[in-house]
Amino acid sequence: MNGKKRVYFFGDGKADGKANMKNLLGGKGANLAEMSLLGLPVPAGFTITTEACSEYYELGKLEVKQLLEHGVKQAVKHCEKIMNAEFGDKDNPLLLSVRSGARVSMPGMMDTVLNLGLNDDAVEGLAKKTGNERFAWDSYRRFIQMFGDVVLQMKPASKQESDPFEQILEQFKLDKGVDKDIELTTSDLQEIVVSFKKAVKQATGKDFPTDPWDQLWSAIMSVFDSWNTERAIYYRMLHSYPAEWGTAVNVQAMVYGNMGDNSATGVAFTRDAATGENVFNGEYLINAQGEDVVAGIRTPQEITLEGSKKWAILQDISEEVRKESYFSLEEAMPKAYQELFEIQKKLEHHYKDMQDLEFTIQEGKLWILQTRNGKRTGAAMVKIAIDMLNDGMINEKTAILRVEPNKLNELLHPVFTPEAITKAEVIAKGLPASPGAASGQVVFFADDAAEWVDEGKKVILVRKETSPEDLSGMNVASGILTSRGGMTSHAAVVARGMGKCCVSGAGTVSVDYTAKTMSIGDLVIKEGDWISLNGTTGEVYKEKLQTKEPELTGYFGQLMDLCDRFTDMKVRTNADTPKDSETARKFGAQGIGLCRTEHMFFEGDRIKAVREMILAENEEGRRKALEKLLPMQRDDFGGIFTAMDGLPVTIRLLDPPLHEFVPHDEKSQQEMAKELRVDVSEVRKKVEALSETNPMLGHRGCRLGITYPEITEMQARAIFEAALNLKKIGIKAMPEIMIPLIGTVQEFVLQEQVIRKTAERVFTEKNDTIDYLVGTMIEIPRATLVADKIAEHAEFFSFGTNDLTQMTFGYSRDDAGTFLPIYIKNNILKDDPFQVLDQEGVGQLVKTGVERGRQGRQDLKIGICGEHGGEPSSVKFCHRVGMNYVSCSPFRIPIARIAAAQAAIE
Amino acid sequence: MNGKKRVYFFGDGKADGKANMKNLLGGKGANLAEMSLLGLPVPAGFTITTEACSEYYELGKLEVKQLLEHGVKQAVKHCEKIMNAEFGDKDNPLLLSVRSGARVSMPGMMDTVLNLGLNDDAVEGLAKKTGNERFAWDSYRRFIQMFGDVVLQMKPASKQESDPFEQILEQFKLDKGVDKDIELTTSDLQEIVVSFKKAVKQATGKDFPTDPWDQLWSAIMSVFDSWNTERAIYYRMLHSYPAEWGTAVNVQAMVYGNMGDNSATGVAFTRDAATGENVFNGEYLINAQGEDVVAGIRTPQEITLEGSKKWAILQDISEEVRKESYFSLEEAMPKAYQELFEIQKKLEHHYKDMQDLEFTIQEGKLWILQTRNGKRTGAAMVKIAIDMLNDGMINEKTAILRVEPNKLNELLHPVFTPEAITKAEVIAKGLPASPGAASGQVVFFADDAAEWVDEGKKVILVRKETSPEDLSGMNVASGILTSRGGMTSHAAVVARGMGKCCVSGAGTVSVDYTAKTMSIGDLVIKEGDWISLNGTTGEVYKEKLQTKEPELTGYFGQLMDLCDRFTDMKVRTNADTPKDSETARKFGAQGIGLCRTEHMFFEGDRIKAVREMILAENEEGRRKALEKLLPMQRDDFGGIFTAMDGLPVTIRLLDPPLHEFVPHDEKSQQEMAKELRVDVSEVRKKVEALSETNPMLGHRGCRLGITYPEITEMQARAIFEAALNLKKIGIKAMPEIMIPLIGTVQEFVLQEQVIRKTAERVFTEKNDTIDYLVGTMIEIPRATLVADKIAEHAEFFSFGTNDLTQMTFGYSRDDAGTFLPIYIKNNILKDDPFQVLDQEGVGQLVKTGVERGRQGRQDLKIGICGEHGGEPSSVKFCHRVGMNYVSCSPFRIPIARIAAAQAAIE
Repeated sequence: MNGKKRVYFFGDGKADGKANMKNLLGGKGANLAEMSLLGLPVPAGFTITTEACSEYYELGKLEVKQLLEHGVKQAVKHCEKIMNAEFGDKDNPLLLSVRSGARVSMPGMMDTVLNLGLNDDAVEGLAKKTGNERFAWDSYRRFIQMFGDVVLQMKPASKQESDPFEQILEQFKLDKGVDKDIELTTSDLQEIVVSFKKAVKQATGKDFPTDPWDQLWSAIMSVFDSWNTERAIYYRMLHSYPAEWGTAVNVQAMVYGNMGDNSATGVAFTRDAATGENVFNGEYLINAQGEDVVAGIRTPQEITLEGSKKWAILQDISEEVRKESYFSLEEAMPKAYQELFEIQKKLEHHYKDMQDLEFTIQEGKLWILQTRNGKRTGAAMVKIAIDMLNDGMINEKTAILRVEPNKLNELLHPVFTPEAITKAEVIAKGLPASPGAASGQVVFFADDAAEWVDEGKKVILVRKETSPEDLSGMNVASGILTSRGGMTSHAAVVARGMGKCCVSGAGTVSVDYTAKTMSIGDLVIKEGDWISLNGTTGEVYKEKLQTKEPELTGYFGQLMDLCDRFTDMKVRTNADTPKDSETARKFGAQGIGLCRTEHMFFEGDRIKAVREMILAENEEGRRKALEKLLPMQRDDFGGIFTAMDGLPVTIRLLDPPLHEFVPHDEKSQQEMAKELRVDVSEVRKKVEALSETNPMLGHRGCRLGITYPEITEMQARAIFEAALNLKKIGIKAMPEIMIPLIGTVQEFVLQEQVIRKTAERVFTEKNDTIDYLVGTMIEIPRATLVADKIAEHAEFFSFGTNDLTQMTFGYSRDDAGTFLPIYIKNNILKDDPFQVLDQEGVGQLVKTGVERGRQGRQDLKIGICGEHGGEPSSVKFCHRVGMNYVSCSPFRIPIARIAAAQAAIE
Repeated sequence: MNGKKRVYFFGDGKADGKANMKNLLGGKGANLAEMSLLGLPVPAGFTITTEACSEYYELGKLEVKQLLEHGVKQAVKHCEKIMNAEFGDKDNPLLLSVRSGARVSMPGMMDTVLNLGLNDDAVEGLAKKTGNERFAWDSYRRFIQMFGDVVLQMKPASKQESDPFEQILEQFKLDKGVDKDIELTTSDLQEIVVSFKKAVKQATGKDFPTDPWDQLWSAIMSVFDSWNTERAIYYRMLHSYPAEWGTAVNVQAMVYGNMGDNSATGVAFTRDAATGENVFNGEYLINAQGEDVVAGIRTPQEITLEGSKKWAILQDISEEVRKESYFSLEEAMPKAYQELFEIQKKLEHHYKDMQDLEFTIQEGKLWILQTRNGKRTGAAMVKIAIDMLNDGMINEKTAILRVEPNKLNELLHPVFTPEAITKAEVIAKGLPASPGAASGQVVFFADDAAEWVDEGKKVILVRKETSPEDLSGMNVASGILTSRGGMTSHAAVVARGMGKCCVSGAGTVSVDYTAKTMSIGDLVIKEGDWISLNGTTGEVYKEKLQTKEPELTGYFGQLMDLCDRFTDMKVRTNADTPKDSETARKFGAQGIGLCRTEHMFFEGDRIKAVREMILAENEEGRRKALEKLLPMQRDDFGGIFTAMDGLPVTIRLLDPPLHEFVPHDEKSQQEMAKELRVDVSEVRKKVEALSETNPMLGHRGCRLGITYPEITEMQARAIFEAALNLKKIGIKAMPEIMIPLIGTVQEFVLQEQVIRKTAERVFTEKNDTIDYLVGTMIEIPRATLVADKIAEHAEFFSFGTNDLTQMTFGYSRDDAGTFLPIYIKNNILKDDPFQVLDQEGVGQLVKTGVERGRQGRQDLKIGICGEHGGEPSSVKFCHRVGMNYVSCSPFRIPIARIAAAQAAIE
């Protein structure tokens, strides 16, 4: 055991480890080794293995220290040599950083300790080296604070309080009448260091360790300890990571960009992160620390000469001033720049992806601190992938895998112009329910929305929450804002379906329907006032903001074409209208996976007939009302079939509980009574009789069709008549009739009989036939368990994972807002299960449903039509379990297509 | 194929078939053969095999007729010989019955055709033989009608109409000005026969078949056809019975008890079906048909002399009159009686169970038409089983299996005296929600109930539906009546828990809280009026009825003792109070499987503290209110632990959504505001904020504990403090703390941490410890899927199959009333899944949960605490999947005990 290598050195273009040693060195350690091996000028350092961490827990602190002592000493010596400094030296101190690093990134473990090695002597050396006494003492007080917090575990006394060091600092500033840290002088900082040390003594009973070696060993042991904090253990449990993995410890020399005018620090990108253009770019500051670049106190300068010149033109700065004050790194330090330029080329070539580098130049010497794949906009992501493919850097599969499907969203919806946003005031924030940007005048009622839009106005519909009665208004509004409801509330789901911008659940917004106002704190916004919504971020702005339409460039088309070559899973759309169907076809939909028929029940005069049906005392009365609906439904289906000529259209039979179709306020009930010529008390009685404690689990779905088969019959007739009428004029309708909410095979068989008998009747009447399928939505947990039996009769399954998620978790989408955010915050759930399919739980039922379904019928057609059908990780899951298609809202089709291709490739 | 035997004869003490040939002869055919082989005087007949039915579908009608012809002819000849009559004969006709009979009884198949062989000639013969012309012609017209309906398929034109024969009959009676069939004369019937034949000719285009052989063949083929009716196919699908089984055809000679004073008909029992006493008994009528005994036009006479004498004393009839008009069969036909007496002894000995016989004496000759195990009361069931065991007729296991667990219910609750019921008027009928009988004065509010009972009155609490706020009133009421809600509504569940009589969902009852009246049609019942409820039948009576307490005789105790020797599964109880706990212990409970803590939150002043907690703005405020609840909860648990000294007590932490604890009407909200010294608007706002669209799937269960850990902490503290206090005085508390509504392992771990930390704190404070378990209720579908992970942390599982059923089916218990009855009527569901565990669907999840749970923890303790824990078939399921215990309401414990024993034996 003693002969085992426990300390892996890196630096000076060499390394003991390499990239594939993540299990032993942790992710960070392996990466540092890799960079060093690539010949990058990485500050020297070493990694203590994860095995040593396990030994720590087996053997204890003392034993492990003995096992490590020789290796660590050697490694520090090596660092001293390379960095030309001495650990703990008074004049030229080598300072170190210490970080934890397991094989995967894991929250809850030890934070970084910087500037380790400082003490009352070394601080003088640092002051001398940097020529900046204040900086040296500020670094020293930060080091004590960090070490105290992280290594000595000096936590605040209660949640409400800040840590003891912050308390001292705040008190000191109060006494001095000073506001910001930056106003503290060197001698202030010296005083604070004294107080900090006193606090350490008081809390731990020991002096703050002045020996750098003591500091180092304590920090190393602290990293080991942090492997078993409550938070880390909980996180490992969540992800089923074994405790045996352990964490590595990374110790690395500090470098400084603030050692005078021959020092600098900056970040650089191998390509433009905003546009994807293939130009080297970045920003830097002379004589500065990394945090100065971010802090915004000084204006960072461009790295390349070309970038610098372009910047100056945009900022209206003369070439003279630019050369004087805003010169590029290329001009200021041509040698370091050239080295950086070569390195970035090398790195992009090595990693075959756009890189984001952090660098520091210490007294003319370039150090690379970090390189990683650079973050980029959706547009840049697509362009870079296609450019690299065209350049032969990557192959087609890699190009597809480079695209983060969700980021395509940015390309598919209108956005605010950057200028508009910078000056706009955010007045509220809700959930980013449906992406895009919209401005309009506030209205509070669907009727008003329609009226105003008729007058040529643009409106934002503001509601506490929406219901199917608001559909007409939502359809014409430019955007929708609700004060309640989550990502899968009615407003959110419908808006996404329409591809319309929506912010939901903006809790600080209080809506007053009577006064026709919305207020946020003291701010009152009246009907007719302009507001703007960003559905991608959830932000609400006062006033009208400029938007621009998305540009679907050639790169985008090229990417989509590429996808289709790899996909074997089809992508359909959820669409209820001919208009949505057309949009979806443009985005590449290969059919409709979910056409909800209930939305059709609300339009115009239909709701009257629907209510007449609901009020009817018996089958005869219902049939009379349904006869009025028949021609309208036939026209609806006709329009959709026409838009989807030659592609399959899955039509779901009536699903929502009947009480969604009746008015719940006195006034509307009176109107309904008048219209239908009955007493208002009768209406009221019916509404009360229809009300349910848990409508989600009530009289809906096929339960309606079973109790009122005449509804199913009417809908089936409308479908078949529409299809046969179109056949005459050469349009091919391919209906797939979907029975909702099936929980038992018996329900399916009874409803199927009604549909097939109706088909035979219509075929006889019209003396012609069409092909059609009868299948079901699998959305009740029980249905997945008896899927084999159901599939003996059903010709297709479509997983309704919205409801399946509700019932499998026992979460009501409408009510989960009270605890779901807390669940996600506390890591009980990784994601909102209504957005990202819960593969661990709900996914098991989906898998069972697919497997048993295919047992019952080998060639069963299987798809998904829940919200998850447009969410990349869920789409991939659907591919893995063997579905034939996914179905999503029109604007998510490209996202689903790329996810499907990625799934096939993976 | 031709050599195969297709026709099996029986009669005259012989038979070709036997009891174990059910697959070939069907259940009925095999039974007839068996009776014949036993030497019983069964009317001769024959069975056509199920194989012939399959051949019918393979080869067609003609071919099969050829294959059967010889065998059927021979068999009929045989019958003629034995019965001494001739098929189709004018003077002495042999008449036949034809029935279907598959290997299991199956609805949807052909009804019986009686009197086959009648035609214009044979009817005269029948008249001669019976000396009753009217009877002969009535039999003839019935035969034509039956044959027309069943064989010739002359169905009504629409659902609203009756069949064509009924129409003719009604019209005839209308024309004659006659009300009842019995008023029709012989010549009337002759006219009707002519009309019936005309109707047949009109409907089928052919004359009614006069040739008995044509009649017979048509009837046989009709039985074969009936195997494939839509209803039969649907039923087979429901039960996964293969179409290949086929049905047999049973043809049997008719015998008549109305052929003069040497003929009779009757029913007999080998023991007393009401008391279980071992005495032969029964009733008969001289010169009558079977239906006359049932019709109640003539008073049936007792079979035995002893019985006859006893009856006369009860009816206050003198021995002279008795001898004259009500003589026994023993006196009237001593020879036939003696034969019957020997046969019943033989039969009981053969079947080793109490038999129920149907017999007919035709001209002095005894015929046995049927024997089967007799129906009996719960008391008789227990006595007979124990008597037979004591007599050595059956062994212990058989004795246990003889008990139908649900029938024990009759023995455990008060009942109305038979005298009281006969004269009482049923004014409404609801669901038999909780068994027992109760009379009391009507009150409509819980407060009133308490007040009136304090004054020494007995009350029935009448509500539209109950809520936890009504608990105090329910607790003191003698019975509960609701106009809404099903078998598992709040009222029903709570009442069963209390062992209190309850009728729920009496839909015709309209409750007016303002007027304090309930009305049923025109009948208005005011507060203070007396009503009575039969919770076993669901009947509601006007006025006060006499009840009697159940007698738990020695037989019952003997049975229970027997059970315990075979059970390896424990039976616990669901109990929330010390009183319930004591009752349950008396019934043999081996611990508490579910103690709901929320009921404790309502009593007396507590609700005030609960509401204070709900209104609190922050954790501090909540803690303050919880501190007030702590001592009360501690007392609650102390009482229950004391009652259950030495037995485990599973305590479920707070489960219902908080809005159940706040008032929803204006007046109570004002009171609450006043009490808590806040503005009523604040109360209203909170109530609104707490309201949920689907409370069942909302913020409840452990979701409360996660968002407000201080509630969990208080409850855990109350449990541990109570247990440690009792330990000092020698009482052993064995708490098992149950976290409700777990869906993810993370939830469990977080709540478990709170409980264990609290335990440590209390143990330190009290300087003592107790053993306890922390486990969870498995009631969310997802929990069953990740049960392995949960069981790594949980020490026990208790399946909450009420909620699990709700979520697996997607049925809300409170709302399913609108479609569940239709589902059961249409055979979509065999049983209400909230009463009988759905083994096909929900059962799969339970099984998965048990299996995975034991994967995660080998010695995991597993039980069930849903309503199903007291339902026999569900209890047996629990045993089969390997549960350690079931838990049910106190009054169902004996039922569960016997079911558990049966499961072990089976």
